[in-house]
Amino acid sequence: MLGDIFENHLIDSLAARFCRAPYQQNLIHESDSEILTMPGNSGANIAVTIDSISEEIRTGLYDDPYLIGWMLVMVNFSDIAAAGAEPIGILISEIFPDDLPSGYIDKIQSGINDAVNKCGSFILGGDTNSGEQLILTGCALGRSPDNKYLTRKGCKAGDILYATNKAGRGNAYAVTKLMGNGSSGIQYYPSARLKEAAVIRKFASCCMDSSDGFLSVIDQLMRVNNCGFSLIDNWKDIIDKEAYETARTHNIPEWLMLAGQHGEFELLFTIPPDNENEFLSYARMISWDPVRLGTATEKPEILLNLYNKTQRLDTKKLRDLPFNTKGDIKKYLQALLQYDSELR
Amino acid sequence: MLGDIFENHLIDSLAARFCRAPYQQNLIHESDSEILTMPGNSGANIAVTIDSISEEIRTGLYDDPYLIGWMLVMVNFSDIAAAGAEPIGILISEIFPDDLPSGYIDKIQSGINDAVNKCGSFILGGDTNSGEQLILTGCALGRSPDNKYLTRKGCKAGDILYATNKAGRGNAYAVTKLMGNGSSGIQYYPSARLKEAAVIRKFASCCMDSSDGFLSVIDQLMRVNNCGFSLIDNWKDIIDKEAYETARTHNIPEWLMLAGQHGEFELLFTIPPDNENEFLSYARMISWDPVRLGTATEKPEILLNLYNKTQRLDTKKLRDLPFNTKGDIKKYLQALLQYDSELR
Repeated sequence: MLGDIFENHLIDSLAARFCRAPYQQNLIHESDSEILTMPGNSGANIAVTIDSISEEIRTGLYDDPYLIGWMLVMVNFSDIAAAGAEPIGILISEIFPDDLPSGYIDKIQSGINDAVNKCGSFILGGDTNSGEQLILTGCALGRSPDNKYLTRKGCKAGDILYATNKAGRGNAYAVTKLMGNGSSGIQYYPSARLKEAAVIRKFASCCMDSSDGFLSVIDQLMRVNNCGFSLIDNWKDIIDKEAYETARTHNIPEWLMLAGQHGEFELLFTIPPDNENEFLSYARMISWDPVRLGTATEKPEILLNLYNKTQRLDTKKLRDLPFNTKGDIKKYLQALLQYDSELR
Repeated sequence: MLGDIFENHLIDSLAARFCRAPYQQNLIHESDSEILTMPGNSGANIAVTIDSISEEIRTGLYDDPYLIGWMLVMVNFSDIAAAGAEPIGILISEIFPDDLPSGYIDKIQSGINDAVNKCGSFILGGDTNSGEQLILTGCALGRSPDNKYLTRKGCKAGDILYATNKAGRGNAYAVTKLMGNGSSGIQYYPSARLKEAAVIRKFASCCMDSSDGFLSVIDQLMRVNNCGFSLIDNWKDIIDKEAYETARTHNIPEWLMLAGQHGEFELLFTIPPDNENEFLSYARMISWDPVRLGTATEKPEILLNLYNKTQRLDTKKLRDLPFNTKGDIKKYLQALLQYDSELR
């Protein structure tokens, strides 16, 4: 059940009273962006999403103003990409505390501007306010060229699970940033996968971005689609090389690079087997090598071949850990290690 | 010059690097909402705006969670109304501190829901995060039934300046709330003027909402349109009765209910003289009595008949006061009174 996950339950309770627009195509939890058929008779459709950067700043995970600006844009356009849409632009609301060092805001604006340029898009407008803490909120708009969108729903047993790229850069960045001396050796400048999304939208049965890490996505796709996923045996190949090495250096079991919840903003999506050859040939045309993660199964469970047996992962437990450890990164890592030890 | 005003200058500097979308119809400072012709060939247009509630919470001006939720919706839909658009819906990002009292969030959600229902619209989606301070951000979408929008630009000398309603409730609320014992006797639940906007859009040459009080709007319209405004002699009639009485009770010159910058979210707009009769007959059809404020003039200055002479108001000084007094409400009021004494 979707509501079994603490985050889903929280969203459900916040939205409990709210009634849905008749022209909204997606249900709650079922899409990275809200998809609207515009009222009136233009037939136009639009994808729209809102996302704030707050906790990452508060915990010190993001302390470089350029990265903060960059991420604000990318987390929002990544949701647009996951809907299979092209970006129209972004609106930005910035809450600045009074005591920011000189040049700090300028670096945020640089990061925002560079990220928007990287996505070939535009900043449409904004709002600025003062507050106790630096908080940035973006609201991105996108459109589909043919009014077809991707949601998290549509996967069937037998579909093949892919990702735009390997897993774990987000978690590797977080580990080195928060567990080390405050600087991370990991290059972390995710880019919304808009170019790949233009291919994915033609062939995929569902899609979601990995803003919360790979296993969180796979768990949510399981719940939305009422199916399961069996991950490939050689799962070490789906972990980013630097992330894999970071895990080894820090004595963290490598598979936790899939489980941690600081994401890498790749897209995870399922391709019906009949579409797979054509999908791969289109991918090659843009010099892109999609990463095969596993296969959708009938039974709603997530299977990983770990410590020489096929294990049924308790992804509910994994997803709820950040809430149960109340944002304490050390406790969170301890709890992850504890869960790992239970699997050995 | 627009950039002479501190707030405009701040926005200009934040947006200095940002390049505009070719499909955006309005320039910076010239509209309450961003107006877009959607890329592609649907010909659809959209109005979109983003607005956060932060300072009002931080200063204690809004401490009732129901009002905070209500205002979040209304400030955003008021911008949609000022563009002459109909609301499509709103997305909401909520930053909650950890220590909110029980039931507090539920009251915020009630305020949001009631305000959206009042506007006949919908909550399209949202995002939630934790942070040090309660901050709500909304992003509202709207559309025009005929692709015509209102902006702040288009007023000519001779046009007649109107408001949807009398002035000063926002300032009266702020005075009683911040200068008194923390409770305000003023009912303050502004409603976005969507019904009136549907009439205004047919006849007006420009429009802007009074989120920062009447004189701030009139100053901005002066700067955008390079014209002036001569306010009516009997200006006491354009101040809300309760606001007028609040001013008297607190020994504040009544005209400062026009100058203070906690707004009432009415619409201010100009009607070309040839449209006036028809405009007024349409207004009567919805049982609405627009408030005549004055007339646009050639020379960029704002004239008010005060203390038995026609005075040229230093609206730049008035608009910059909140920045120069750094959010200190007592200093701000002192500075307003000081300016008033110079006019006597």
